[in-house]
Amino acid sequence: MEHERPGEFDLIRTYFAPLASDPGSLGLTDDASVYHPRPGYELVLTKDMLAANVHFFSDDPPEAIAAKALRVNLSDLAAKGAVPRAYLLGLGLSDDWTAQWLERFACGLSGDQAAFDVTLVGGDTIRSGSGLQISITAIGEVPDGTAVRRSGGAAGHVLYVSGTLGDAAAGLKERLDPGFLNNLGLTDDDQKHLLHRYLLPQPRVALTGSIRSFASASMDISDGIFADARHLAKASGVDLEIEIGALPLSPALRKIQGADKDLAMVCLGGGDDYEILCLVPSDATEAFEASAADASIAVSRVGTAVAGEGAVRLLQDGQPLGVGQLHGFRHF
Amino acid sequence: MEHERPGEFDLIRTYFAPLASDPGSLGLTDDASVYHPRPGYELVLTKDMLAANVHFFSDDPPEAIAAKALRVNLSDLAAKGAVPRAYLLGLGLSDDWTAQWLERFACGLSGDQAAFDVTLVGGDTIRSGSGLQISITAIGEVPDGTAVRRSGGAAGHVLYVSGTLGDAAAGLKERLDPGFLNNLGLTDDDQKHLLHRYLLPQPRVALTGSIRSFASASMDISDGIFADARHLAKASGVDLEIEIGALPLSPALRKIQGADKDLAMVCLGGGDDYEILCLVPSDATEAFEASAADASIAVSRVGTAVAGEGAVRLLQDGQPLGVGQLHGFRHF
Repeated sequence: MEHERPGEFDLIRTYFAPLASDPGSLGLTDDASVYHPRPGYELVLTKDMLAANVHFFSDDPPEAIAAKALRVNLSDLAAKGAVPRAYLLGLGLSDDWTAQWLERFACGLSGDQAAFDVTLVGGDTIRSGSGLQISITAIGEVPDGTAVRRSGGAAGHVLYVSGTLGDAAAGLKERLDPGFLNNLGLTDDDQKHLLHRYLLPQPRVALTGSIRSFASASMDISDGIFADARHLAKASGVDLEIEIGALPLSPALRKIQGADKDLAMVCLGGGDDYEILCLVPSDATEAFEASAADASIAVSRVGTAVAGEGAVRLLQDGQPLGVGQLHGFRHF
Repeated sequence: MEHERPGEFDLIRTYFAPLASDPGSLGLTDDASVYHPRPGYELVLTKDMLAANVHFFSDDPPEAIAAKALRVNLSDLAAKGAVPRAYLLGLGLSDDWTAQWLERFACGLSGDQAAFDVTLVGGDTIRSGSGLQISITAIGEVPDGTAVRRSGGAAGHVLYVSGTLGDAAAGLKERLDPGFLNNLGLTDDDQKHLLHRYLLPQPRVALTGSIRSFASASMDISDGIFADARHLAKASGVDLEIEIGALPLSPALRKIQGADKDLAMVCLGGGDDYEILCLVPSDATEAFEASAADASIAVSRVGTAVAGEGAVRLLQDGQPLGVGQLHGFRHF
């Protein structure tokens, strides 16, 4: 960790060194860290950046900002069937950072390290002179040759998603337009659910083994089910037919759907779900579903891969929907 | 690579996908990349962040910004004796980015990939809504157990630095205070040399083998020789005695020294050198020097480790200098 002004060295040592429990991290006191790959395993590497007021709000709890930054990376690893091992943290601090903020940020990382069995192995902290930016590189491992890509799907494979979709987008809309959920008649508990889903993604790390064992192609949903389905379809060289009625909705989102059907569609395409989207060969669906149930992760069949070249078709009760509804909406 | 607005996907594909020549990078079209560690090697991981107008100027040539961001990371790897293999690139684009800027930035990376035999394996691009920020995670490899840390030095070991010191700090001062070098009577060529040394660090990748074979402790100099010597001394649990007259100066810096001795000291402590600072056991100095000469990298003996607890003493013709001169000055 380099280039801190006086005082920042001490803060790093105080708050981040305790997170670097692996001996290879050298207590974050060296130029670099040493990582020993396990023989017979390959590494899966991912890097996601987050910026204040783009991917989170500056006044979000620091613990949640930290956890979100880590979790969006763990979500990528899970989608590849990789078990998370380590991460490097890049922190571009805004000018108004405080020791208390940093302490709470480190606390958020610490909680997630315990929850997801992952450890800090290095990083860098700078003063960015502008808004907070976080850059995390996460490292996972899979037995050699078993990483699940986006490209392994084939016609006939069944399309699954984990959890529920659209919640985070609805939570984000409430943040940007406070009162909108109230106007739709949602209860306090519904609102809390949606806001929490935006604030704190739940990476499906528990589904890692099921994905690795049974999925032919997999990714996480960050740009919205419709946009990401196109990515999966294109990479696998198939078309995907998605039955709208089969998309899993939380009770809160179902209420939004009841009040305003179009708005529910916008939420579904809104992104930030960090659920898994994967294809499973039809002879493995039973085993996949059983394995997911063992891992206590809900998975729903939402469609099928058919011969094609990367198109996504939405069906309602088997009838095609218009192409204008296929676009994911990153932000409102 | 996620969260790009429409159009950015295409730019990434156009400019960055060609840099991802390793099949494990999956052409940057997946959530993550796959990295196959070589059996018998451990990985060295480092991450440096750079922000516009903190670590470079926004109007620097994009090729140079890209190269600097990569090179400061390669410098960390070289200091550990690690051969660079791969890197992940995080790019927080400012609002005024253009396709032409991005093309030139990618071109800078491409040139350095060829020069240093390293390849892009993943990353993320976001719009940061503020100044450009770059976060690179670099991966190097060393045979198991041979990474050189800061902590291996012992009393009696000889202190070396590579190249020349203080040039980049003088170049930075010229950028901030144009005409200052002219006022000191430096020629155009001298000025170009110093400005170039700030703009484009020269990571001592060629010295990697010599460091791994002969150095007991090593780091790169980014915060200035005096500050970084303290880091090395502390990590190795020794005191370091540095002979000021032995510090290697370029002809340009020697002219600054002739005009203003104190200013030369400030430049020496200014940082951004990206030279190697290492300790070599006295029975290995001859072999280390021969190995560095084979690699065509100049190295200079600048001091000695003695029993102690992390102090740095500057000597002038064997006489101690005052403690007030020991502080590195990150910026003017």
